[in-house]
Amino acid sequence: MEAQSKPSPPAKDLPGEKAERIIEAMRQSVARRGVAGSTFDHVAREAGVSRGLLHYYFGTKERLLVEVVRREADLRFDALDRQLAEATDADAFLRLLQTSVDEMLRTDPTYVTLTFELFTLANRNEEVAEGFRDLMQRTRKHLADSLRAKEQEGVLHLTVDPESVADVLFSVGDGLTMRVLAEPDRDFGPAISAAIRSLRGLLDDA
Amino acid sequence: MEAQSKPSPPAKDLPGEKAERIIEAMRQSVARRGVAGSTFDHVAREAGVSRGLLHYYFGTKERLLVEVVRREADLRFDALDRQLAEATDADAFLRLLQTSVDEMLRTDPTYVTLTFELFTLANRNEEVAEGFRDLMQRTRKHLADSLRAKEQEGVLHLTVDPESVADVLFSVGDGLTMRVLAEPDRDFGPAISAAIRSLRGLLDDA
Repeated sequence: MEAQSKPSPPAKDLPGEKAERIIEAMRQSVARRGVAGSTFDHVAREAGVSRGLLHYYFGTKERLLVEVVRREADLRFDALDRQLAEATDADAFLRLLQTSVDEMLRTDPTYVTLTFELFTLANRNEEVAEGFRDLMQRTRKHLADSLRAKEQEGVLHLTVDPESVADVLFSVGDGLTMRVLAEPDRDFGPAISAAIRSLRGLLDDA
Repeated sequence: MEAQSKPSPPAKDLPGEKAERIIEAMRQSVARRGVAGSTFDHVAREAGVSRGLLHYYFGTKERLLVEVVRREADLRFDALDRQLAEATDADAFLRLLQTSVDEMLRTDPTYVTLTFELFTLANRNEEVAEGFRDLMQRTRKHLADSLRAKEQEGVLHLTVDPESVADVLFSVGDGLTMRVLAEPDRDFGPAISAAIRSLRGLLDDA
């Protein structure tokens, strides 16, 4: 099955401003209509570009969706890196991570739900599966690098390898945000404190 | 919006054997075609019942999907309860939970992906949102009850309230299973060990 195993070519370079508009239009469309309800016609109209251009650059809706989540992840990591630079011990590091999740939930829960949507689509679409795998790898490596840097700075000590810490941090984060979104009226304070308490088993002060 | 906020009536009682067939047919259809691709026509044909009967009992595809996941959760909890009865300390409890997740991933990953699919659908369908919220609450309470019972038996000691422990256990479990399914060729042994290490902060020996 060569067509399935061959990685798809990277999205062609787009003039930055048009790419931004297309990706932002897809983001908003997915938030409003879901992935199944978002068509190239909608997105092209709302981005003010031709349907042909969209097709030429992104090929499929799934590929565009992967790009939306990938860029979003990059933006979030840039912001997170700036915040984490301030952490002076393990508690501060975890608190800053928590703040960044809180902020995302408050201002932009679409990104959280998009990640899960990408995962469910990955089960039926090899291109999305590759994009999602790539996203999981890149985010894990990025957070692992931050953890390694913090350890070298003497800010914290890792009790296991940094990639495993990143896996557990993201897993708890994903699972809890899903629950917070599912039960918006419940107080998740105690559950979040419990999560931080458990994560301290992986992240000590230096 | 009364129609949105009023809980839907419970699914009508079905003769057990027909209900089983419908639910199993929906499960298999979703695994093969996804939720979007699964129609009442498919499911009725594959369950050997009339489309009208399906409609009469379940109303919508979303409602049938919620029932599929709900019954699956009940079955899994029955099995898990029997397994957890054998746990004699905190490590054994966590190991049995891990075994049950491993087994699910090996034999039946559909259930895992269905949970995430239900979550993404919940964002756009109030009936699914209620079903998903109910599922999160019931599974949390069920595991919290098991944890409480184990504490009373003197098998383990909880360092925080049992519902928060259940939230963190399920969150880590969901996040990690999503990652394992996304990267089937990666060795998640170290990440799973790290997860168990972190969870030991919530679950001590008695």
